[in-house]
Amino acid sequence: MSEEKHIDTVNIDLGERSYPIYIGSGLLQSTDQNSASRLIEHLPGQQVLIVTNETVEPLYLQQISSQLGNRIVETVVLPDGEQHKNMEVLQQVFDSLLGAGFGRDCTVLALGGGVIGDMAGFAAASYQRGVEFLQLPTTLLAQVDSSVGGKTGVNHPMGKNMIGAFHQPAAVFIDIDMLSSLPDNELSAGLAEVIKYGFIRDADFFTWLEQNIEALRSRDPDALVTAIRRSCEIKAEMVAADETEQGVRALLNLGHTFGHAIESAQGYGNWLHGEAVSAGICMALDLSRRHDWLDDADVERGRLLLQRAGLPTAPPADMDEATFLKFMQRDKKVKQGQLRLILLKQIGNAFVSDDFDHGLLSATLNAF
Amino acid sequence: MSEEKHIDTVNIDLGERSYPIYIGSGLLQSTDQNSASRLIEHLPGQQVLIVTNETVEPLYLQQISSQLGNRIVETVVLPDGEQHKNMEVLQQVFDSLLGAGFGRDCTVLALGGGVIGDMAGFAAASYQRGVEFLQLPTTLLAQVDSSVGGKTGVNHPMGKNMIGAFHQPAAVFIDIDMLSSLPDNELSAGLAEVIKYGFIRDADFFTWLEQNIEALRSRDPDALVTAIRRSCEIKAEMVAADETEQGVRALLNLGHTFGHAIESAQGYGNWLHGEAVSAGICMALDLSRRHDWLDDADVERGRLLLQRAGLPTAPPADMDEATFLKFMQRDKKVKQGQLRLILLKQIGNAFVSDDFDHGLLSATLNAF
Repeated sequence: MSEEKHIDTVNIDLGERSYPIYIGSGLLQSTDQNSASRLIEHLPGQQVLIVTNETVEPLYLQQISSQLGNRIVETVVLPDGEQHKNMEVLQQVFDSLLGAGFGRDCTVLALGGGVIGDMAGFAAASYQRGVEFLQLPTTLLAQVDSSVGGKTGVNHPMGKNMIGAFHQPAAVFIDIDMLSSLPDNELSAGLAEVIKYGFIRDADFFTWLEQNIEALRSRDPDALVTAIRRSCEIKAEMVAADETEQGVRALLNLGHTFGHAIESAQGYGNWLHGEAVSAGICMALDLSRRHDWLDDADVERGRLLLQRAGLPTAPPADMDEATFLKFMQRDKKVKQGQLRLILLKQIGNAFVSDDFDHGLLSATLNAF
Repeated sequence: MSEEKHIDTVNIDLGERSYPIYIGSGLLQSTDQNSASRLIEHLPGQQVLIVTNETVEPLYLQQISSQLGNRIVETVVLPDGEQHKNMEVLQQVFDSLLGAGFGRDCTVLALGGGVIGDMAGFAAASYQRGVEFLQLPTTLLAQVDSSVGGKTGVNHPMGKNMIGAFHQPAAVFIDIDMLSSLPDNELSAGLAEVIKYGFIRDADFFTWLEQNIEALRSRDPDALVTAIRRSCEIKAEMVAADETEQGVRALLNLGHTFGHAIESAQGYGNWLHGEAVSAGICMALDLSRRHDWLDDADVERGRLLLQRAGLPTAPPADMDEATFLKFMQRDKKVKQGQLRLILLKQIGNAFVSDDFDHGLLSATLNAF
């Protein structure tokens, strides 16, 4: 038997939709009886559909299934990759739920990265107009960002995450041991979102990341837990303040308007989401500097940290201004046709801007 | 200029999601300036997508479009019929929204019957994770039932309304003049839901319906307004008490577990929803009588009123017990595998039962 492991808990405070995020090493090992019961504890019904993908299935499906006691467990294995996050593949989840005869009291359990979490979550939001949902994120990006906060959905050929729902999970289980199987480029993609939290909300965390980026890339467990916990804390605070993104929550989109345009224009799956966000953050830094809101030194600090995290710091060379503007105009933050961007006053202080200078935006789009 | 028409208003009390149902004759005629402004009043943004079908478009699209002032109006025309209420056709609505470049501040306006309302509503619930929604129901069934209460969704080959969301409209506009173009069988189908309200909640209304069924079938305007208003009042009361159907709202499903099985088994669109509900109510009456909860006289009163409304009082002859049970088991009211049915203690008094006698259910399924 393994000894009792330390588990951190971050709570998302949303009234009756509040839920815990459990973070730790060995959290989902079957020898840990406490963790097994913790998973069961968040399963109100008897029927569980595990939604996973072909990469994660051979690594973790058996481990998770074995902890579900006498529950009726079905599994659906989806293809891996952002290019499969669409309505057609989503249908497979509904087919599985109905084929199994699952009722409104079933639970959908997402076992995978952001794509799996988003699709399983939207299926849970929509099946019989809403069933229970649990998140077991297996990538760093999903652990620090997409599994927390209730945003679910699929892509449309004309825009990323255009069809979806806000549907909060009943709990999130983050086992950092699962990161041992993550490819290096996916670890880096997750670090883009971790670094984002420093940029928008916490200069001290940004400094800590500058000091610990190598430890994170070498998957030091203590460094990972610290980075994941702080990321979840910041996200929890912003989601609790603004569940459906009417205001402050939009700050979490730093780099995302540029990044979504890159992902959509390049074809889903060709750039990892975190890679596109990293390039997008560098563009937001550039535009903030052109407005004299940010100085050269901070821009360089930002660019350097992203680079040290193994991330791209510029968009693909073949994307011109017109292409960017076409895709950016479909951003969900557009209001009355007016583009809104997340920009920086300084590291740790982001804001939503709808009165940026369009000439300076043009300069940024042409500068890379 | 037309003189000022009398407009009834029924309010759905759901806190910050409360909304009005406007009921009247001439409500949406373009000569009535007050009504035009009432429609505009519920359009917060500049962008409006009208979702309608190929039957309704030539009748009412121009009339409605002309009342939207200087709004940016796009239209998507879907095929008509329950067999088209599915994910594939729903995609056309998302394609239209994205093709028009509409943002999160747009409004989706449903102009049609229950199928259009359910699909437009689910599109509004899901587009960019939720946009504004208005209902302009053009059939009696949509006016008294499906346009009120926020249930939206599409069918799956394995079950009706299996994929959807609760998404309340910002307002419902019921113009009884639109019923003049409704085929007789569709009028009767709407009367099935009207009669349902009498059965579950209001014996006096049931008696009034017995006295006025011919007036309703001949489309007497005063009788229609009375029947629609009372139906909306009863629905409003039950939705306000239980928005997401955890309890009392389930009573609105009288006859629907049997009826959905008929619709699914016969192929969507071959039986009108209201026709299937009418046969389903007769089966619920039969099962209630077999439990000695209802006497023969009340069963006969119920059957006779549905018959006088021009509705079927028995399921299709080719549906056997096994077929019924297969489809009924997929009902959304099933909990832990246990079927739950809406049954009657007397006319005006329905209840949810999960301890009915399965032998008696078998007898009912074989009796028709």
